[in-house]
Amino acid sequence: MRNVVVLGVGMHSFGKFLDKSLMDLGRTAIWNAIEDSRLSPKDIEVAYVGNSLGGLVTGQEGVRGQVILRDAGLSGLPIINVENACASGTTAFRGAWLEVASGVHDVALAVGVEKLFLPDTSESIKILAADSDIRLRDFGFQFTAHYAMKLRKYMQTSGCTKMDFARVVEKNSFNASMNPYAQNRKPLSAEQVLGSRLIAEPLHLYMCAPMGDGAAAAILCTEAMARKFTNRPLVTIISCSLRSGKFQDPNNSEPENTIALTAKSAYELAGVGPEDIDVAEVHDAMAPIELCHYEELGFCPEGEAVRLLDEGRTRITGNITVNPSGGLAGRGHPVAATGMAQVAEVVWQLRGEAGGRQTFDPKVGLVQTSGGFVEDDTAAATVIILKR
Amino acid sequence: MRNVVVLGVGMHSFGKFLDKSLMDLGRTAIWNAIEDSRLSPKDIEVAYVGNSLGGLVTGQEGVRGQVILRDAGLSGLPIINVENACASGTTAFRGAWLEVASGVHDVALAVGVEKLFLPDTSESIKILAADSDIRLRDFGFQFTAHYAMKLRKYMQTSGCTKMDFARVVEKNSFNASMNPYAQNRKPLSAEQVLGSRLIAEPLHLYMCAPMGDGAAAAILCTEAMARKFTNRPLVTIISCSLRSGKFQDPNNSEPENTIALTAKSAYELAGVGPEDIDVAEVHDAMAPIELCHYEELGFCPEGEAVRLLDEGRTRITGNITVNPSGGLAGRGHPVAATGMAQVAEVVWQLRGEAGGRQTFDPKVGLVQTSGGFVEDDTAAATVIILKR
Repeated sequence: MRNVVVLGVGMHSFGKFLDKSLMDLGRTAIWNAIEDSRLSPKDIEVAYVGNSLGGLVTGQEGVRGQVILRDAGLSGLPIINVENACASGTTAFRGAWLEVASGVHDVALAVGVEKLFLPDTSESIKILAADSDIRLRDFGFQFTAHYAMKLRKYMQTSGCTKMDFARVVEKNSFNASMNPYAQNRKPLSAEQVLGSRLIAEPLHLYMCAPMGDGAAAAILCTEAMARKFTNRPLVTIISCSLRSGKFQDPNNSEPENTIALTAKSAYELAGVGPEDIDVAEVHDAMAPIELCHYEELGFCPEGEAVRLLDEGRTRITGNITVNPSGGLAGRGHPVAATGMAQVAEVVWQLRGEAGGRQTFDPKVGLVQTSGGFVEDDTAAATVIILKR
Repeated sequence: MRNVVVLGVGMHSFGKFLDKSLMDLGRTAIWNAIEDSRLSPKDIEVAYVGNSLGGLVTGQEGVRGQVILRDAGLSGLPIINVENACASGTTAFRGAWLEVASGVHDVALAVGVEKLFLPDTSESIKILAADSDIRLRDFGFQFTAHYAMKLRKYMQTSGCTKMDFARVVEKNSFNASMNPYAQNRKPLSAEQVLGSRLIAEPLHLYMCAPMGDGAAAAILCTEAMARKFTNRPLVTIISCSLRSGKFQDPNNSEPENTIALTAKSAYELAGVGPEDIDVAEVHDAMAPIELCHYEELGFCPEGEAVRLLDEGRTRITGNITVNPSGGLAGRGHPVAATGMAQVAEVVWQLRGEAGGRQTFDPKVGLVQTSGGFVEDDTAAATVIILKR
């Protein structure tokens, strides 16, 4: 397998854009990535387009990526549409990586794009349930409920409090206030978070990722080719792991942790450990779940996530910064766009281009995404490790 | 890149199954492929699931493959949902091939599954438009219209007649009558075809692929590994090409033929030419388009497709059999399942297991699929070449 680098990244801001189509969102992200890469669109040999809910939101299924790319002026290349709920973007990224790593293509485009806002927001909320097994919807089991239950259990085993959860939002909303692509840029105090409306105990409104529209893209190529286009530091993909939950395993008395297993294989492949990670973007669809991810990703031993937070080690000024972008509650969460936005943030961090939210000289970064639920396990977990 | 073989294939019959879900269809095809492969489901390391319209038909998007595979008893592995209209199945196949060829995984599952029939068939027909750019629908431009226009042009340039078109159906319906998985198993005479209802000049009802539900699956692995499971002749994938149309090219004065270009790259990669192909499954969503495919795939020079048909060379008894399965009008056309059913047919042919429709000792087989339209070009064209 060949070494693959992220040559360039681009985004469309996350937010509510009722007047914009999937094409509008995708086009901006794609061209920002092309400009950042300094190559010609003709150099792109293959494209992976991740979108999760466009069929139900827009009525367009089947050839979403072709329609989006045609609108962006790209055609005549292999286009693969992929879908893995909230991990659709990173699944697209993994596909692009595999094309280049395997030697089939030299330059690949990965796009994550999602349009959720409809004039009637209740329609959007109903559609969001299609990112998990829709039969769960019949039990009123929305993904917020899943997170609420997981966090209540975590409170019991770890002894942490709702104030600890609120302090995650405090940290991330501060980061988001410096992110020009973020949907929510207002810094929030822990008190403000706990004062916001209760959604599902222990989750308050400001802990939850908002509905959003947005897109992000990356261009991947071989290390050798990258040097033709740029003198900037190269960001190399040192691992790219994907796994689905172990649903319905009759021997599953002690359920496996799918995210932890995905991280384990990513670390093994990359030849680095959690102690080597300087900056990470994790999938905190509900911000407090970031604490669970500290433990699942090995950033600290089990039960010690709050200590990591207390010591400020996961802040921008810490030694293992988590969610400098603002995370999903801060940056926003247009499902398939999220993973690619996480990649963009880590690339900017590793290149030292993250502006006010830049962490100190990071060398290794991690992206973790989890998409959808089947039964009570993650339907698609991805962990990507990047190195400058 | 490593040599990859198709270890086993399986299908669920194509037809109208109002009482069956995507899971029901997928489960049967997957387990038939597992049994044909003689491995344990635990040996499967990665899965690609192609489905095109399940979001709009069933309400389930995002994690369709995970829901289908969980139901089939498979979990804990990477699952990638792909979508490319009628080429969704072969796009899944290409993904599975790339995983094994690149060395990332040793055993991969590819599934194509589609449920189109709803109690109200007019709903299904409306949904089918989402397999092409839905903005075309506003012009009343359904894919049948595209084929009708292409075929009228072909009649003008080649001088062929509607009777020639009807004779393609005569040939293929005879083949389908011997295919236990086919949706339409009644042999039709050319006269019966021309006597059926006119849909869009020059297309009559029996020339058109029917609406359908169905599924097909294949298990791919390395050549070395295959020998552990089977003593049967191995079917090796010698190329797997994918391309999208060249939409909106300002220099596109003489439009390129996307299917011909995809075939060209497949032949180059495989190191074989059209003269080496013994059996082919081609994407005749409207049966007469098979004649155009003869020329696009290089089976005969331009304008000589009817002669190839006249000489009986594309019959089961011919030297370059086309659509022994019955083709899309005969076997049926549940969008994403079609490409994988084509693969299954070619594998059975190469192994000598095709029963009454077995061709004489074929060594090299080809699968061609085209999926959806953007403007007036194919959104996703695939060509796969298999060798015993």
